[in-house]
Amino acid sequence: MFNRLCIIGVGLIGGSLGRAARERGLCLSIIGAGREEDAENLRKAKALGVVDDYAFDIAEAADGADLVVMAVPVGASEGVFRALKSCWSAAAVYMDVGSIKGSVVEAAARVFGEAPANFVPAHPIAGAEKSGVEASHADLYRNKRVILTPLPQTDAWALGRVTAFWRAVGSEVSEMEVGHHDAVLAATSHLPHVVAYALVDMLGRRDETEEIFKYAAGGFRDFTRIASSDPQMWVDICAANRKEIVALIRQFGDELQKITAMLEVGALEQLYETFCYAKRARQRFLDQFEK
Amino acid sequence: MFNRLCIIGVGLIGGSLGRAARERGLCLSIIGAGREEDAENLRKAKALGVVDDYAFDIAEAADGADLVVMAVPVGASEGVFRALKSCWSAAAVYMDVGSIKGSVVEAAARVFGEAPANFVPAHPIAGAEKSGVEASHADLYRNKRVILTPLPQTDAWALGRVTAFWRAVGSEVSEMEVGHHDAVLAATSHLPHVVAYALVDMLGRRDETEEIFKYAAGGFRDFTRIASSDPQMWVDICAANRKEIVALIRQFGDELQKITAMLEVGALEQLYETFCYAKRARQRFLDQFEK
Repeated sequence: MFNRLCIIGVGLIGGSLGRAARERGLCLSIIGAGREEDAENLRKAKALGVVDDYAFDIAEAADGADLVVMAVPVGASEGVFRALKSCWSAAAVYMDVGSIKGSVVEAAARVFGEAPANFVPAHPIAGAEKSGVEASHADLYRNKRVILTPLPQTDAWALGRVTAFWRAVGSEVSEMEVGHHDAVLAATSHLPHVVAYALVDMLGRRDETEEIFKYAAGGFRDFTRIASSDPQMWVDICAANRKEIVALIRQFGDELQKITAMLEVGALEQLYETFCYAKRARQRFLDQFEK
Repeated sequence: MFNRLCIIGVGLIGGSLGRAARERGLCLSIIGAGREEDAENLRKAKALGVVDDYAFDIAEAADGADLVVMAVPVGASEGVFRALKSCWSAAAVYMDVGSIKGSVVEAAARVFGEAPANFVPAHPIAGAEKSGVEASHADLYRNKRVILTPLPQTDAWALGRVTAFWRAVGSEVSEMEVGHHDAVLAATSHLPHVVAYALVDMLGRRDETEEIFKYAAGGFRDFTRIASSDPQMWVDICAANRKEIVALIRQFGDELQKITAMLEVGALEQLYETFCYAKRARQRFLDQFEK
C-alpha cells in the first residue's frame, strides 16, 4: 500500500499504528521521528522493531516517505508542520491523529496559507491512558472508529489512501465536518474528562483532611479512571477546543442545578424519570459500543 | 456464631450475605422474607440453597432468629421496623445494610421512640450494579469495607457480634458517627452517581438528534458505568441524604466554574496543576483500593 511510512511521535498512538501497518503488510519500511529528549523511547521503538530506524530531524525522517503520520500532541502540530514545510512532497500523503481537528487545521493554515490538499485530518477514537511505545500494540485500532475531517480542498486521492489505510488496520471510518467533530468530541470525551478531573480535584483536597477515599468503592474507581489520563495532553485539548468545552461545562452546570431543584422541592418522580432516562440512554450507547 | 439467620430482602446484598454466612458456617439455618411480589425471587433463593425457607410475613420469618438482617432499600426501612416491632426480641441482634445511616436511624426512632440498643446500623461498601438473588455470591464482602455507625445507646454485645460476623465474611470493619458516614458517602458515592446520571441525561438527549454516542469510547463507558445503577434505589438515596448531596452538588458547581474561569483567561498552568493534582489524588485512592 505504501513504501515508506514515517511516524512523527512514536508513542502509544504512533507506535501502535506502526505495529499494525507492519503486521498487515501496509508498508515496506517505517521510520520514526522524535525530539532529542525522546531518544530513549525511540531507541526502544527500534529495539522492539516498531520502527526500522529513527531521526531527530523531522524533515530528514519524512524525506522519501509516501505516508507521513503526525502522532504528536495537538499543541505541537504547528511546529511539526513548520518542520515538514521545506520537504513537503506532492507525491506523499500526510495525516495527523489528534483529538481536535479545528486547531490542527488552523495550525496548518498558519504555516501553509491553507491546509495542503494532501493533508488528511484524522482522529482514531482509541483509548490512550498508558503512554510510550512500550504500551503500543498492533490491535489498538481494530474495531475502533476513525473520524476523518476532510476540507473542501482535500484531495480525493489522498483521502482515499488514508481511508484504505485505516480500514486495513481494522478501523471503521467515518467522515465529518471539522467543527462538528470538535463539538461531538467535546461532548463525548472532553467534557467527561474535565468533569472527572474536577471531581477528583475537589474530593482529593477533602481526602487530605478526612481520608474519604478509604471508603470509596469500585464505582468510584471506574468513574474517575479518566482522571488518570495525561494532564499535559488534556490541557492541550482543553486549550485547543476551549470554546466548545466552556459552553458544555455551562450547560452541565445548568443540568446539575435542575437536579438540585428537584431534590430541594422533593420532585422525586421527576428525579426518577431523569435517572431512568439516563440508564436507558447509557444502554443505547452500550448496545452500539459492544456490538 | 448464630443459630438462625433471618434475611429480609434476599437480593444481591441479602443473598450474598446468606451465601457467605452459610459457606463460612456462621449460622445453622437461614430464613428469607420478602413481599408477595418478590415470590419468584424468593423461590429462586430457596432453589439455589441461599435460604432454607422463606415467608412473606416479616414477623413470622424473624421469629426465633438470633440475627436479623434488613437488606431492603433505605426507603423501606420504616415499614420493616414496624413489621418487626411486635416480635422484637432482646435476645436477637438486628442490623441493616443501607447506604445511608441517618434516615434509617430516624426511621427506627419513629417506630421505637429511639433506635433499639440491639440494632446496629451497618453499611457494607460493596458494588451493587446487578440485582436479584441470582447475582449474589459468597465472596461479595471479601476484602470490602463495612462501616458500622453505632449510636450512644447501642449495646456493646450486639456491636461485637455484628463486628465479628462481618469480619468472618472477610470484611474490614470501621466505625463512624452516623452524620459523618452520610457526609463521607455523599462525597465518594452519592455525588459521583448524581453527576454520572446528570451527564448521561444531558448527552443522551443530544444523542437523540445527533448520534454522538457512536463516537464515544471506552473512557466514556467507564465514566458512565454508575449511571446504569438502579434508578429507584438512587432516588431513595438522594431523598434520604438530600441535604449533604445538595451541598456537594453546589460545591461541585463552584469547582466547575473555577475551571471554566481558568479556560476563559487561558490560565493553562493552573489548569495543568489542577489536572496533575487530580491524577495524583486518584493514584492515592487506587493505592488504598487495590492494596
